[in-house]
Amino acid sequence: MEVYLDNNATTKVDPEVFKAMEPFFCHIYGNPNSLHKFGAGTHPKMVEALDYLYAGINAADQDDIIITANATESNNTVIKGIWVDKILNGNKNHIITSEVEHPSITAVCKFLETQGVSVTYLPVNEEGVLEAQQVADYIKEETALVSIMWANNETGKLFPIKEIGQICRDAGVPFHTDATQAIGKIPVDVQACNVNYLSFSAHKFHGPKGVGGLYVEKGFELTPLLHGGEQMGGHRAGTVDVASMIGMGVAMKLATSPEALAYENTEVKRLRDKLESAILEIPETIVIGGKENRTPNTTLISIRGVEGESMLWDMNQKTIGASTGSACASEDLEANPVMNAFGSDSELAHTGVRFSLSRFNTEEEIDYAISVIKGAIARLRSISSSYAYTPKNHVSEL
Amino acid sequence: MEVYLDNNATTKVDPEVFKAMEPFFCHIYGNPNSLHKFGAGTHPKMVEALDYLYAGINAADQDDIIITANATESNNTVIKGIWVDKILNGNKNHIITSEVEHPSITAVCKFLETQGVSVTYLPVNEEGVLEAQQVADYIKEETALVSIMWANNETGKLFPIKEIGQICRDAGVPFHTDATQAIGKIPVDVQACNVNYLSFSAHKFHGPKGVGGLYVEKGFELTPLLHGGEQMGGHRAGTVDVASMIGMGVAMKLATSPEALAYENTEVKRLRDKLESAILEIPETIVIGGKENRTPNTTLISIRGVEGESMLWDMNQKTIGASTGSACASEDLEANPVMNAFGSDSELAHTGVRFSLSRFNTEEEIDYAISVIKGAIARLRSISSSYAYTPKNHVSEL
Repeated sequence: MEVYLDNNATTKVDPEVFKAMEPFFCHIYGNPNSLHKFGAGTHPKMVEALDYLYAGINAADQDDIIITANATESNNTVIKGIWVDKILNGNKNHIITSEVEHPSITAVCKFLETQGVSVTYLPVNEEGVLEAQQVADYIKEETALVSIMWANNETGKLFPIKEIGQICRDAGVPFHTDATQAIGKIPVDVQACNVNYLSFSAHKFHGPKGVGGLYVEKGFELTPLLHGGEQMGGHRAGTVDVASMIGMGVAMKLATSPEALAYENTEVKRLRDKLESAILEIPETIVIGGKENRTPNTTLISIRGVEGESMLWDMNQKTIGASTGSACASEDLEANPVMNAFGSDSELAHTGVRFSLSRFNTEEEIDYAISVIKGAIARLRSISSSYAYTPKNHVSEL
Repeated sequence: MEVYLDNNATTKVDPEVFKAMEPFFCHIYGNPNSLHKFGAGTHPKMVEALDYLYAGINAADQDDIIITANATESNNTVIKGIWVDKILNGNKNHIITSEVEHPSITAVCKFLETQGVSVTYLPVNEEGVLEAQQVADYIKEETALVSIMWANNETGKLFPIKEIGQICRDAGVPFHTDATQAIGKIPVDVQACNVNYLSFSAHKFHGPKGVGGLYVEKGFELTPLLHGGEQMGGHRAGTVDVASMIGMGVAMKLATSPEALAYENTEVKRLRDKLESAILEIPETIVIGGKENRTPNTTLISIRGVEGESMLWDMNQKTIGASTGSACASEDLEANPVMNAFGSDSELAHTGVRFSLSRFNTEEEIDYAISVIKGAIARLRSISSSYAYTPKNHVSEL
């Protein structure tokens, strides 16, 4: 049996999404900017897709949703757009973000620091959550942008976006949120949450890879990251990836309908909880950041004395896919930055395993996974030097 | 009969390309950066695709090909990377390009001018070609980059890339070429032509939209446009669009094999020439820039007294797709900038129609197109006020 439990890294394209995309490769293949019927033939489904995207995040008609290559491009677009408009060509010089953002936020901020920009990386509390008041405490006259993720990719922890949005709006500071891990898991409403910019990536909610979106509230337009043709109203040049845009639209519709969100928060959550509870029956295992206030599909579990990488290896032998954290950095085998960020020691940071489910997981898969995981933990602890040497009460102190 | 003669705007995905992509949506869907088999399952075909890309442009093993969203992103990556590294953080302040580049070059340069960068836009001669010596004449100590396209998107005219490459290498100035319109039409060899950076887009050679490439010679690495995860060796963050990358590889193989290039330069050229000759039999029609030294699939024809847009409309009624120029700007109905650039007057600039063929066009399609086009020209001239009023020898003066 194959069990894919790494849906925060990427997801299977929903067959219904693929079906919607298929005609736009070899049949309806015109450039949407062309004036003839080959181009115009792409328009109806593109418009429909855009409607689904607007509905999925409750964007107002006058606002913009720019089609990008992925959330990484969306994030770079916002932060570098702010850099050009408000810092290089303005009088601001400060950005507020968190210590646990995705690399596509953190790496941009690190780059901007080399260009003289001041960046505040807010820490998270012992539950892995950023407190909204911290944002208020650090906003100053020079602050050009606040960028805080909606849900953490490692822990699934939800951040107080609505409160942060209100604080930013009151202070007159633009607010961006990377909602890549939130879409399709919880309701996302840009208007209710005072969001000015919001990023997402289709391949995290059963759409195709290579396409994402950037919501831009009217009045918050930025210098584009991709200059060129007049696509996307001049906000993002480059021929629109028609098939992928249409796929993303359908994926958004399927992932954010009331029924889909209800299923995610009942059935997917139930399977996640079942898997988690079964692992937590084993001594000296904990859920990093605790169980409260998370996306329903994610659990990040530390298993004392067991290297995360070794767990992955054992599970992989039994065709179960999980992660030690963000796939975007997984090749370098560094300690999980999120666990480092909320004060875990190095040993704990190396013992985390993230399981992230989706609507495609079944009860049988979870039962199989539980049996494999229990066997792997027993085997790895039996050969672990760190498990034998570490004081038994080590983990419970955290 | 439907006849698509707008292949410089975009192309139909080759069914063989689509077949190669298909498994990577719903079946082999892992994140290539994940450590488990779902991720690793993507690797063999990705490696194969990369091999095809290297072979297609004769890149050396030590050089880099970065997978991007499209040539627009590749172009922005090079020019803005040079801006950050050599201008903002260096002692250079000058870029040389031409007046007839794609908007994804020109618009970036116009933006950099607002940031204090000096840009030289070299004109083209009466045949629409940039002379290599001009580049040498304008290179100075402050020059950070020369960016000249390989083949023009409107006329198909080929620029002296090898000579320009040699001039740049001798002068120690990095050289970038946008080869979007050259790949699959003529042999493209980065090593033989002294190219340091080269951009391309899959959807111009029967690959999918939403994926492109950027060749970077070893030693010419730049600050990335997309900061984030460690994908592409840190040179372009964001989850790789696996299906599209694999599709682009296969499309490159199919488009650049000796047999494919031979077919392009015999059969596709023969059909292009047949279409062109038939139109040129009509009085007061000319090929903009002349017939020499062009890609084999393209012809840009001016038909005196006939608005290009009107021709498109008439042809569209008979399900023939062509263009008045770059699809990237076609919605705004401005005069064709390429024709403006080489000194044509405004009337001529509004009377151009571009026909761009592909290996999927047939003899029957061209025969049908000729008959429709002749009828359209006759009809439109019969109702044209400008045709009646313009001196008859107007066009032949150019």
